Amino acid sequence: MSSSASTLNTLYLPELREMIATDDDASLREFVDALMPARVAEFMEGLDAVESWRVLQVADPERRVEVFGYFEPEKQTALVHALVGAGDADAISGLVADLPADDRVDLLRDVDDHVVEELIPLLPPDDRRETLRLRGFPEGTAGSVMTTEMVCLPEHLSVAEALTEISKQAQEVETVYYTYVVDDDRRLLGLLSARQLVTHYLNPNQLISELMQRDVVTVLAMDDQEAVAEKVADYDFLAIPVVDENRRLLGIVTHDDIIDVFREEATEDALLAAGVAPLENGYLKTHWFTLAYSRGIWLGVMFFAALLTAYALLRYEEGFDKVWWLVLFIPLVISSGGNSGSQSATLVIRGLNDGEVRLEDWRRVLWRELAMGLFLGAGLAIVGYGSALLLTRQAPEPHLSPTSYEMVVVPVTILLVVVCGTLCGGALPLLFQKLGLDPALMSNPFVAGIIDIAGIVIYMTVATAMIAGM
Amino acid sequence: MSSSASTLNTLYLPELREMIATDDDASLREFVDALMPARVAEFMEGLDAVESWRVLQVADPERRVEVFGYFEPEKQTALVHALVGAGDADAISGLVADLPADDRVDLLRDVDDHVVEELIPLLPPDDRRETLRLRGFPEGTAGSVMTTEMVCLPEHLSVAEALTEISKQAQEVETVYYTYVVDDDRRLLGLLSARQLVTHYLNPNQLISELMQRDVVTVLAMDDQEAVAEKVADYDFLAIPVVDENRRLLGIVTHDDIIDVFREEATEDALLAAGVAPLENGYLKTHWFTLAYSRGIWLGVMFFAALLTAYALLRYEEGFDKVWWLVLFIPLVISSGGNSGSQSATLVIRGLNDGEVRLEDWRRVLWRELAMGLFLGAGLAIVGYGSALLLTRQAPEPHLSPTSYEMVVVPVTILLVVVCGTLCGGALPLLFQKLGLDPALMSNPFVAGIIDIAGIVIYMTVATAMIAGM
Repeated sequence: MSSSASTLNTLYLPELREMIATDDDASLREFVDALMPARVAEFMEGLDAVESWRVLQVADPERRVEVFGYFEPEKQTALVHALVGAGDADAISGLVADLPADDRVDLLRDVDDHVVEELIPLLPPDDRRETLRLRGFPEGTAGSVMTTEMVCLPEHLSVAEALTEISKQAQEVETVYYTYVVDDDRRLLGLLSARQLVTHYLNPNQLISELMQRDVVTVLAMDDQEAVAEKVADYDFLAIPVVDENRRLLGIVTHDDIIDVFREEATEDALLAAGVAPLENGYLKTHWFTLAYSRGIWLGVMFFAALLTAYALLRYEEGFDKVWWLVLFIPLVISSGGNSGSQSATLVIRGLNDGEVRLEDWRRVLWRELAMGLFLGAGLAIVGYGSALLLTRQAPEPHLSPTSYEMVVVPVTILLVVVCGTLCGGALPLLFQKLGLDPALMSNPFVAGIIDIAGIVIYMTVATAMIAGM
Repeated sequence: MSSSASTLNTLYLPELREMIATDDDASLREFVDALMPARVAEFMEGLDAVESWRVLQVADPERRVEVFGYFEPEKQTALVHALVGAGDADAISGLVADLPADDRVDLLRDVDDHVVEELIPLLPPDDRRETLRLRGFPEGTAGSVMTTEMVCLPEHLSVAEALTEISKQAQEVETVYYTYVVDDDRRLLGLLSARQLVTHYLNPNQLISELMQRDVVTVLAMDDQEAVAEKVADYDFLAIPVVDENRRLLGIVTHDDIIDVFREEATEDALLAAGVAPLENGYLKTHWFTLAYSRGIWLGVMFFAALLTAYALLRYEEGFDKVWWLVLFIPLVISSGGNSGSQSATLVIRGLNDGEVRLEDWRRVLWRELAMGLFLGAGLAIVGYGSALLLTRQAPEPHLSPTSYEMVVVPVTILLVVVCGTLCGGALPLLFQKLGLDPALMSNPFVAGIIDIAGIVIYMTVATAMIAGM
């Protein structure tokens, strides 16, 4: 996708530095207040932690939190570390306390533990309790991405009373677009959208209990965040309520968190597909050693798969001595299988992810892949046969070029290997899903590794069968 | 991701069929009205076009459109085809007219042209004009995904007047969460969020021109939808206004469309990475032949890359005759390079997509990949050397196993090939980006193909250099 959104914006950088240098608070405040928070954060990208804090200080607390909220996670962490390091923990703790609960927890996940220990005691009691509670939910669960700041109202209110309540709470809550109607035990009774409220703006005495929709889709705090994201996307929700077993409202997951989940997911799947263990941060931000590790483990696994090909080839060594030209097509045979296999695996994995392919469809999938393998394999086989004939004609003396009958070994092998590739590639992700594993684990290089070996065995078996004296 | 959201829901299917069979409209209407539209659509998944239409008929027009909106695109198309086929174009045209403009256009993109030609004349004049206008925007642009149903108000209104206006329009527009303030030429003056309106519910006489934020982030109708999605995600918007060169408001792109863009993107990138040309629909829904084509072209490209390896091997044929054991490690050498290359390519491509890696970073990237290649390559080299020694000890007579010095060819090659892999994998996507191409085109099998050949050349060069009499 476009990376435009994030190319460093240095437009105001010189002016900002100038204002900071000359302690021109008036201009700084004007800069902070004039633009929308996201833009302010964007223009501050180039400033270091200390400079950024200097600018934030002139803003009123509310603005400060908004702008801070749009900083990159790394910048937020750096700022916290810098201030706490400078013994300014109090100053930052106020800001941390004002962050939306979920963002606060994310931030504290990133900063060093000793800093967390310093900050948490400085938070106001309820913020502290809430933070500790949210930190209790394992990463990747609905609980870990939910916010606890939403509008909750009792069902006996009228539209006018509700609007009044919301208008008072509007500054504290993360979204006013949904209002949650709960009983005295915070059990979720219904949902009221801002649209419904505004629609009934002209009959203010109607009771919200008559307007609210009672059939509310919810998720549990321990539900997987991907499942939650899928639900929100399928229903086009702006937020989804998170409840406990007793349907007590714990929090909500909002659309912006959902989009983040989808972006993380896309990256994670792409890395898995290339045999890289998921990364916490981006490519450049990840520590070199962490990166080496998350690449090394997979590379090692695939390397051992490849080693097996060497053993397989050893078994057939004599064959290669007798029939010199067999060697030439080893990579061709292997890659044909590997490539078609990766295609099938990826198609099926994506299908499973998007929910378009289901386990029940396994027969259809395998039939499709069989047909696909026969079709594509036949195509490659024909091209391969022609090229093989041409190629071996140019054999260096003293080699005698193989008969066109012997050469048929190549196309036959290609056909079989491609079919084997598409079938494995189609079947393995389904198998993984069936076993309750993430089908994405059946990553392309992994499938390719398996097919490499199969390819060699098929190749030499066909050769032994077709070539006299082998 | 979880596919739970979409596993066929057959809970009410028997009852529904029963109600249809017995023409029990009362129960049907109750079913349609009791649940929220998304759920109704979910429970109707199992019904065919005719049955579904039967159920929709009992619902009041507004409900009907909502439920229809949640059907899978395929189901919507099928329904339209069925009804128009049955000469019932009028019935369906009403429903099509009531769809949000962007959904209507999407739907008409999917149905057969002759059906479109039959439907468009049946639409009310403004809907027709609008539809034709939106169809004018090429797919993948902001214009093609925007909706034109939003609240637009003049700036002289008070909060109370604005709320009254919105409450009247609420049913027609797609979102009430943003109100757009425009002048008499529809030029965008400012943006007013429902939050701001609700916050000032208690001082109804304030002018919206004092509340609205004037610094509004906009996109142009011809902007790429991915760029738009990135912007919305970065700013945590619910919707973004689409304007023309004169800042006249044309429409808005809403959060649900943004999520769809991200999901499409994720799938598209994953397919590209495996060498499959992007698909319009899912794996099972795509016509077999289309699928064969979008796989075949890439498979063909990669096949020719692999053919080059055969030519390369032919050049070194004599070497293999003299040194029998070189053959064994061809796949090992090749796959080591290919795998590490795919890892690097994917990491850099993702980085570029997420905007974390920028072209300016090319030096850092290459240094990282060089170091990574040396580190990982050395690791694999050591393991490879050990295994190679063990392996060749088991050589079948009359072969004499190579000296441990000759064997050093294998680790040296592995090291060089892996470094070559990481460097190419890191550099090629940057190069593509630089050339203004989608870096994702530099898909893994493509990188692997290039490195396969490099691998063989490196392998045999090292061998010739190190082994006497080659």
